[in-house]
Amino acid sequence: MDHADWMHHALALARQGLGRTWPNPTVGCVLVKDGRMLASARTADGGRPHAEPQALADAGAEARGATAYITLEPCAHHGHTPPCADALVAAGIKRAHVALRDPDPRTAGAGIARMQAAGIEVQTGLLARQAATVNAGFLTRIHRRRPFVTLKLATTVDGRIAMASGESRWITGPMARIYAHHLRATHDAVLIGAGTALADDPRLDIRHLGHVPPLPVRIVLSSKLALPADSHLARTARQQPLWCLCGPRAESAELAALGAEIIPVPEAVPGKLNLTDALEALAEKGLTRILCEGGGQLAAALLAEGLIDEIVWITAGKAIGGTGLPALGALPFARLEEAPDLEHIETRPLGSDIMSVWRPRNGLLAHMSTA
Amino acid sequence: MDHADWMHHALALARQGLGRTWPNPTVGCVLVKDGRMLASARTADGGRPHAEPQALADAGAEARGATAYITLEPCAHHGHTPPCADALVAAGIKRAHVALRDPDPRTAGAGIARMQAAGIEVQTGLLARQAATVNAGFLTRIHRRRPFVTLKLATTVDGRIAMASGESRWITGPMARIYAHHLRATHDAVLIGAGTALADDPRLDIRHLGHVPPLPVRIVLSSKLALPADSHLARTARQQPLWCLCGPRAESAELAALGAEIIPVPEAVPGKLNLTDALEALAEKGLTRILCEGGGQLAAALLAEGLIDEIVWITAGKAIGGTGLPALGALPFARLEEAPDLEHIETRPLGSDIMSVWRPRNGLLAHMSTA
Repeated sequence: MDHADWMHHALALARQGLGRTWPNPTVGCVLVKDGRMLASARTADGGRPHAEPQALADAGAEARGATAYITLEPCAHHGHTPPCADALVAAGIKRAHVALRDPDPRTAGAGIARMQAAGIEVQTGLLARQAATVNAGFLTRIHRRRPFVTLKLATTVDGRIAMASGESRWITGPMARIYAHHLRATHDAVLIGAGTALADDPRLDIRHLGHVPPLPVRIVLSSKLALPADSHLARTARQQPLWCLCGPRAESAELAALGAEIIPVPEAVPGKLNLTDALEALAEKGLTRILCEGGGQLAAALLAEGLIDEIVWITAGKAIGGTGLPALGALPFARLEEAPDLEHIETRPLGSDIMSVWRPRNGLLAHMSTA
Repeated sequence: MDHADWMHHALALARQGLGRTWPNPTVGCVLVKDGRMLASARTADGGRPHAEPQALADAGAEARGATAYITLEPCAHHGHTPPCADALVAAGIKRAHVALRDPDPRTAGAGIARMQAAGIEVQTGLLARQAATVNAGFLTRIHRRRPFVTLKLATTVDGRIAMASGESRWITGPMARIYAHHLRATHDAVLIGAGTALADDPRLDIRHLGHVPPLPVRIVLSSKLALPADSHLARTARQQPLWCLCGPRAESAELAALGAEIIPVPEAVPGKLNLTDALEALAEKGLTRILCEGGGQLAAALLAEGLIDEIVWITAGKAIGGTGLPALGALPFARLEEAPDLEHIETRPLGSDIMSVWRPRNGLLAHMSTA
């Protein structure tokens, strides 16, 4: 086991917290002494306790003289808990490998400085790219003041999500549907437009995973607040959070009474929410990772405004042809050179379907793997 | 080097003949004695001489006692040349590994029987799946009385081949365009519909490969023979074969005078050629592998009738949205369960684009690799 191996383990732990730790980032911490792992932890569900104090508590007095592998710079500010940097110092940690500096202005190097001032040898940058991918949600919130947005699409080879009749069950196979639930589980929230909410009456819950992780917030964008009170989403608003983003003048005492949170945001034009404002409002409420599940109009609007950070495109070996419903609505570009420019990250099989990941070429995660 | 290694080499040779040996299959032959390769050859461009007599001539008297690795059963019938099976016997070959039996009724086991009767130990089936892939064109012509049809599409991630304005240059990058010319080079002919011929005035030649292989036949399907005499295709009909498939009553003295071959085929309905008849006519003229390059109406019609054997789908990291031109025209299916069912074979990067290969799940090559 070398340094990279231990950091890989810390990253694997951090990844297990995706979708579970918001508003905090998910961090992994591994403590090693004499080539042996003393303890390891990730940020707990809900964001507290942080990884470091958990691992230190597990290691106890043994931690003195140990090396810590931490996927994100330990915090240096007093929040709900004392600073992790201080805890590492107090425990007598000798060396620390930190994959990524914390861009949060409350830390931003102060955690590392505090450790160094106390005599801990600190190295940064080990597996920094992987750490950036794990922390994509947190980084996007800091740098772009909005959550990281993943767009999930499931289409035929010719990019159709349904027959002209609307028939869409099932384009993709069981493995792809299970994967879609895994995607929900690794995001803080699932986002749909009002059209999809009305047409599909979806549940947006998590099934098929063999365990029930913390359920994602369900977000419906609807300038007129057009979600029926008898919809699946509204009826279950107390079991799984439902946030309705709507125009400034929309009101629904009924939805609020059912437990939905009504979040007014400015409109770009009458009847159309300002998507940048909407995502900023969601980031302010602590969301770091959002999975957009459509429909085509919302997906196209987000893509056109540069608000999609990753596309997970699941393709089934079927063809529907030119009369089928397209995955993306109209995009407001007159020339090809203005079209969104996406980088291919990976493709892999999902049962008899395949999944391809694309990211904007100019995005925060440009040129990084999915791992 | 074991048996499979030598056969792999024979298959690699055979693959080099793709698009070059029609109306004959491309065959590879490797002669080995005492662990050393004596000679190797593939079917020559144009289909003659066959691989075996070339390799035997190279090996000379050394061939006595050697083992032959042959990708397709040697012929047993007197055609333009004496039977290859007899030549192997006369040369004193001791053992023969034959990847695939020749389904041509004129051979169909007779080549193997003739060798066995002369005392050659014959084993069949070594790398038979790979051999079937290499021989897909030949096998399709024997079993389905039509050429193997590859459909090439180059689209955005959302399956669009052009903006609503028609702008399509360039959706894919330079590597994808080079690969498209490689595809032309490995097919006997390139097929387009009249709409594409009129809209794009394409050349359908081969460039960008660093060498000039035998040029594919260019085929235009047009029931009304609507190809202008001043089109690129018509003007170069004497440099690169141009076959115009048209309805029974269409005539064009002008195109014929320019060197185009006019091939009347029955219409399915007035103004629409019977595609099965068209492909049968092409098989009768000796074609084994055809690359369809569109447009969307022809591609959809071929797919709907089960006449596509492989789809090579090149996807660029761009999105055009719902108003763009779809890759496939309308398909005549009312329900999802009737839609074409495709098996994913492979996906690989082509520069910044990706290429995915799909084949009908019920096709001749079901469950076989692309190798």
